[in-house]
Amino acid sequence: MDFKKFLNELKKITSDFLDKKEDLYVYAFDTSQNPDVVTLPLAVVFPKNKFEVSKIAKLCNDYNIAIIPRAQGTNHCGATRASKNSIVMHFSKMNKIISIDKENLIAIVEPNVIIKDLNDKLDKLNLFFPPDPSNLAVSTLGGAIALCSGGARTFKYSNTKDYVINLEVVLANGEIIETSKNLAKNVTGYNLTSLFVGSEGTLGLITKATLKLIPKPKTRMLTLCYFDNLYDASKCTDAIISSGLNPASIDLIDDITIKTIEKFNPCDFKLDKKAMLLIEQDGFSQCVEFEQKILRDVLIKQNIAESDFYQTKNEEENENIYRARRSAFGALAQLKPNVVTEDIVVARNKIFDLIKKIEHLSKKYNIMTAIMGHIGDGNIHPNFALDLSNETEKNNFEKLKDELFSYAISLDGTLSGEHGIGNLKRKYLDMALQDNSHKLMKEIKKLLDPKNILNPNKAI
Amino acid sequence: MDFKKFLNELKKITSDFLDKKEDLYVYAFDTSQNPDVVTLPLAVVFPKNKFEVSKIAKLCNDYNIAIIPRAQGTNHCGATRASKNSIVMHFSKMNKIISIDKENLIAIVEPNVIIKDLNDKLDKLNLFFPPDPSNLAVSTLGGAIALCSGGARTFKYSNTKDYVINLEVVLANGEIIETSKNLAKNVTGYNLTSLFVGSEGTLGLITKATLKLIPKPKTRMLTLCYFDNLYDASKCTDAIISSGLNPASIDLIDDITIKTIEKFNPCDFKLDKKAMLLIEQDGFSQCVEFEQKILRDVLIKQNIAESDFYQTKNEEENENIYRARRSAFGALAQLKPNVVTEDIVVARNKIFDLIKKIEHLSKKYNIMTAIMGHIGDGNIHPNFALDLSNETEKNNFEKLKDELFSYAISLDGTLSGEHGIGNLKRKYLDMALQDNSHKLMKEIKKLLDPKNILNPNKAI
Repeated sequence: MDFKKFLNELKKITSDFLDKKEDLYVYAFDTSQNPDVVTLPLAVVFPKNKFEVSKIAKLCNDYNIAIIPRAQGTNHCGATRASKNSIVMHFSKMNKIISIDKENLIAIVEPNVIIKDLNDKLDKLNLFFPPDPSNLAVSTLGGAIALCSGGARTFKYSNTKDYVINLEVVLANGEIIETSKNLAKNVTGYNLTSLFVGSEGTLGLITKATLKLIPKPKTRMLTLCYFDNLYDASKCTDAIISSGLNPASIDLIDDITIKTIEKFNPCDFKLDKKAMLLIEQDGFSQCVEFEQKILRDVLIKQNIAESDFYQTKNEEENENIYRARRSAFGALAQLKPNVVTEDIVVARNKIFDLIKKIEHLSKKYNIMTAIMGHIGDGNIHPNFALDLSNETEKNNFEKLKDELFSYAISLDGTLSGEHGIGNLKRKYLDMALQDNSHKLMKEIKKLLDPKNILNPNKAI
Repeated sequence: MDFKKFLNELKKITSDFLDKKEDLYVYAFDTSQNPDVVTLPLAVVFPKNKFEVSKIAKLCNDYNIAIIPRAQGTNHCGATRASKNSIVMHFSKMNKIISIDKENLIAIVEPNVIIKDLNDKLDKLNLFFPPDPSNLAVSTLGGAIALCSGGARTFKYSNTKDYVINLEVVLANGEIIETSKNLAKNVTGYNLTSLFVGSEGTLGLITKATLKLIPKPKTRMLTLCYFDNLYDASKCTDAIISSGLNPASIDLIDDITIKTIEKFNPCDFKLDKKAMLLIEQDGFSQCVEFEQKILRDVLIKQNIAESDFYQTKNEEENENIYRARRSAFGALAQLKPNVVTEDIVVARNKIFDLIKKIEHLSKKYNIMTAIMGHIGDGNIHPNFALDLSNETEKNNFEKLKDELFSYAISLDGTLSGEHGIGNLKRKYLDMALQDNSHKLMKEIKKLLDPKNILNPNKAI
């Protein structure tokens, strides 16, 4: 392989180019706590538009060089880790909100737009893009689409895939495709859009996305509800859903998480309880007030003492609690050198079994574990605090994960609801995917990327 | 081709088998007003389970015989028309609601379950499957999934694709795959589910579907609002959406439709107006009442006289109006020998241009046209009443459609939002789909069905 020739050709396409070792090192990582040896890319490029992306793809395809597409790299699954004979394609120069169309309820964005920046603009226009990954202040829409990351509001609003209506994608051979049109509904041809959402950059490079917006709920209020054990929290979730309420989110937070985030961002959380549910209700304020009352009745019927729940009264309180909630990962990171956030989904009525298993494995392998998650969706995030430079802890953690994911699969659960597979969870795919389905995914990958240059060894 | 040998092998797989000419004729049609010469299938089979479907697919693949999968055949696009050297695979023996899981908010169904039958069962459990194609009393979930048909509530609830979380599909080679798992969230591997939804049976044969349910809104109320022209109705839709209201549906009905359905199913509709908006709001009754008030304020601000709108007070009124609304196709069918329902989507702010064009073409070609549609989604259904046995009318209608779809595409619109492409709209695909996107769709079809035996010449 004539790398020098390749790099020279690459430089001709874009001058936004890095290939010094110290620079390459920076872009070889992502947020994942990946114990693998770091592989440096050959170069990092910062394309400015789809034409540059297309030319780079074509060149890499010709030279058999892998492309690792990335934005902020906030993923937890090693989805943007560099691999051998690769270049990193960083989308930071493609960061414009191209348009927000209030009349038609759509926004068109480039991949590197920070989710919060879009939210802030939409807010002023009384518009709403529901997906809210907890790192939205730093993570990008391109990343959220590539990983189909969701957040807490999935219970009511569903996740990112249902808010992407059209994508501009550069294929491995440099062809530029538009997957659909900028329309609320379109069944003309196959649904290519959803095929690319969540494919972790392994099928194509997203250069533009059209998002579906909805009218912004006028207000939101939170209910915090405390429990003496996680089982009661899970039972209470059932009662809330059975009542006919449709809250924006129903999140679970365990005692370790409560204590840790309270220290980091005080919210007057009760520290003597084993679990908290954090329930958001949104809509017109009069409706939210009414629905808060119904929720209160549900909680009382569940024999929850009035002193064990609290309903917020204003947006300032909401924002403070959400700030604390969103800081969980950062707060937990102070406990140990590494915090690994995991992502498991089971049917909601199996949540308690899953939680018991997590607690059991945490004790068995002596790894501190804080549990949180979107319990309304059956989506649990155990956060493991440990020291991955300690060989014993590292090995124990691998054993813990092996047992945990095997157990989740035995419950008909799955490996990820919103964080993705990346390179860290690929080893569990054979047990998680049905054989024929997995085979078809590999064939689709081969069809779209016959030389396997797009983010190889990720996702499937 | 040794048809006799093929048919003998087929009979060995299933005894639910028809091959008499008079029987074949019945299954060669669907609801589409398709002027093509009728092609008879070689046989009609009624498989009882996925294993029979799989064996039949394998046999057809070996013998190069096409499979036309169908259920009630209520589609308007010729999606289930038989073609040369084909058998019809009718799913009427696979019509069970396998399970409704209230705790996890999912239902598992076989393809031939009638949508209304599922709805009725869900109703009693306070559960809700939002997609509501207007023919839901006779059409099936398998059909709705194959065509990604939507209905009026798409504005708030999005369409069928967002309520299918897992499919069991038999591929052309007989392989049985499960596209995902029965979980609210799953990003493990590629999103195969959405690839099959809306693919009109051209990529695989759906034998089981897992549907996402939501808690049933406790109540719904309708607001009927009349206008002197369609432009005002369109402007009013903008005002409703800008107000922050998020109604379940915003439907448009023109004067011809109003008059026709009023005759068929009296509802006290005003007959001297040019257009009506039919707006559904749903939720807890106290919230709906409050939101009805906000809607009233929006209408008054739009200078709509109080005598020009009406808000329903109970479910009996709602049901009567919906019955009338759903009868539109049947009612219009009394005007002329044929009624062709079309399906066009444009951005909402281009609706009025589209409607003007429809009116213009209707006059130009002297074809009676009734306009209705889900205006909140930019999705318009013009109903053309004509006599297709009259050569002049038939030719004029083809010209009308050519001009209409060209115009819709020139507005960045598309050919279908929920009725599908079938074989009737395939000739417009080249102008509707971007070249590279269309090419990729064909490659995916070839990957999944290399011999082109699954519903050939449909969808793409």
